[in-house]
Amino acid sequence: MLEIHDHDAIRELRLARPPANALDPDLVSALTRAVSEAPDAGAHALVLSASGSIYSGGLDVPALLTLDREGIESFLDEFLEMLRTVALSEVPVVAAVTGHAPAGGAVLAIHCDHRVMAAGAFRIGLNEVAVGIPLPQSLHSVLARVVGRRQAERLAVRGLLVPADEALAIGLVDELVAPEAVVPRALEIARAYLAVPPTAMRRTRELARSDLAAIFDAEQRDTWQRFVDDWFSAETQSVLRALAERLAKKSA
Amino acid sequence: MLEIHDHDAIRELRLARPPANALDPDLVSALTRAVSEAPDAGAHALVLSASGSIYSGGLDVPALLTLDREGIESFLDEFLEMLRTVALSEVPVVAAVTGHAPAGGAVLAIHCDHRVMAAGAFRIGLNEVAVGIPLPQSLHSVLARVVGRRQAERLAVRGLLVPADEALAIGLVDELVAPEAVVPRALEIARAYLAVPPTAMRRTRELARSDLAAIFDAEQRDTWQRFVDDWFSAETQSVLRALAERLAKKSA
Amino acid sequence: MLEIHDHDAIRELRLARPPANALDPDLVSALTRAVSEAPDAGAHALVLSASGSIYSGGLDVPALLTLDREGIESFLDEFLEMLRTVALSEVPVVAAVTGHAPAGGAVLAIHCDHRVMAAGAFRIGLNEVAVGIPLPQSLHSVLARVVGRRQAERLAVRGLLVPADEALAIGLVDELVAPEAVVPRALEIARAYLAVPPTAMRRTRELARSDLAAIFDAEQRDTWQRFVDDWFSAETQSVLRALAERLAKKSA
Repeated sequence: MLEIHDHDAIRELRLARPPANALDPDLVSALTRAVSEAPDAGAHALVLSASGSIYSGGLDVPALLTLDREGIESFLDEFLEMLRTVALSEVPVVAAVTGHAPAGGAVLAIHCDHRVMAAGAFRIGLNEVAVGIPLPQSLHSVLARVVGRRQAERLAVRGLLVPADEALAIGLVDELVAPEAVVPRALEIARAYLAVPPTAMRRTRELARSDLAAIFDAEQRDTWQRFVDDWFSAETQSVLRALAERLAKKSA
Repeated sequence: MLEIHDHDAIRELRLARPPANALDPDLVSALTRAVSEAPDAGAHALVLSASGSIYSGGLDVPALLTLDREGIESFLDEFLEMLRTVALSEVPVVAAVTGHAPAGGAVLAIHCDHRVMAAGAFRIGLNEVAVGIPLPQSLHSVLARVVGRRQAERLAVRGLLVPADEALAIGLVDELVAPEAVVPRALEIARAYLAVPPTAMRRTRELARSDLAAIFDAEQRDTWQRFVDDWFSAETQSVLRALAERLAKKSA
Repeated sequence: MLEIHDHDAIRELRLARPPANALDPDLVSALTRAVSEAPDAGAHALVLSASGSIYSGGLDVPALLTLDREGIESFLDEFLEMLRTVALSEVPVVAAVTGHAPAGGAVLAIHCDHRVMAAGAFRIGLNEVAVGIPLPQSLHSVLARVVGRRQAERLAVRGLLVPADEALAIGLVDELVAPEAVVPRALEIARAYLAVPPTAMRRTRELARSDLAAIFDAEQRDTWQRFVDDWFSAETQSVLRALAERLAKKSA
């Protein structure tokens, strides 16, 4: 479900869990492990790509609906740990957003150092609210550092999915290229990080991303507790079950 | 001076104080009351519109010039209370900026959730400095959260009024539509807030706007005290009296 | 090396140290003195311009390479003092970026109130990392207040020099004009600061730039200590010596 492709000192981690690279507990822990182990394996930069035209459809809702309260709590811990691992990775991580990136797909991308997205009829956004899930605090803070407070509020509160060109205009992604050029361009950006003197780059990167460490340190355990309460609320369960039924019909 | 029009669950509050919807003590308290009472009256979202091609000309300078120190202090308390009430409203507030929005008009708009403005030869801006009034701290902080620190500094320090298209480019408003479409479009945005699961929207909105509560909590009483001192300074009084005379000639 | 030209109440400080207006200890102290003395000499606003098509090539690396640890420490103290003096100047400072502005040239510009840059094939950027120098904390914070956190991270970590039109698009400069119009336009902006009521402008400017004082207060002495360690590291010395050799060949 997660392929590893090495390109010299750059390691590409490719989500490969058809049909939508949905984030279930296994993929989440595989990703956390792969990102944290990469530097020791000799990777000086990472590219986070995906196979297919859905970068990631976000959380695997049908799988998560089978979990009880304890299961959801444990999944959330692991999901937050994955985001922290990507955000605080000691080597740069470039997101190669190969297609649609709703919810968890967009969340993953905004924790990376740079975002290359496929031009065309693809959409990206933190549409958690639209599926009944309030945005946790750290996710909103990370979104705001990428697009600014005004756009973060607009996108998050209304749960918007925006087309790729709007995503570029508001800074949700850094550049658009043809779908087949997304991974090559992400590798090029990764190489650019390695083309400058490494100590100066590393120190400046730690400084530029030090607010991310602060964001994760400020994330309150009780926020996530409230998130779990919300997850099992009638409102959220009803939206999620309807979503799961649509997915089941679609795949049938 | 303030019309109330209900559109299903959306309440439109329409400034109707000709010729310029200037904010005098009565309109300010009417607006505060209307915004705070709306949710209990069944409104799930608000649209803050105006009749005529001046959204609001800002503070009613001729009226305020008749007030003594105590009167100004009490007006400022009520003005700040109005802004806090709009900013922290428990339901979304969409500004339908139907035309020119100098000073207080722009101030009102930036405290809302979203700004739709009339395209064309209309201007908007916090030009307080140009009429001799230093910008209070909370207003500058709210401006900075909307347009970023660089633009907030540029706009506020030089007291700029910018054309509608520049306002869109720098993020001072979120969208431009033809003047007659401003209110319908604002209603459409208000409906979009109501089209997503309500608990998730409400929680995420509280999170996204939690910095506004912090901004108002940080507003120092002594800042406003200094503001009152400045108001009665020779510099400000002379600029304001000249302004009032121009207005008097214009209406004569 | 620093010319003073008075235009009524506006004082133009023109860098005039051929060929690249490189910042050596003497130019840095001359600039600090000139900025801090200007208000007492009757200047109500400053324009910081340069002769030639290089606004400033940044630090004078060949000169600095002759300094020992104590010399570098003392230079850094003076460089930081210069930036603080520009940033906290009691009168507005407009940067007239007449051409290329790499490293120290861009650093100087972002501490000013407004940046007018020459349109055309000129580049600007904080490319310190590209020459092996990690960005000190205050510089990164000032950059982030100008262009936002996402762009600050992108520019600083990769040590990018961007063309003038990209600098405009991302907000690193405020406007582009023909090279010969840069100084006249900067003077015009300086005059605009003086065209509004002075007390209101001054108070609002102090408010809008109060975060700069906080940034300099937060600058840690030990950050600069680490900067000195980095300066004498093998990585940085090797990049800087190669740079100095290229400069020597070029001028020979």
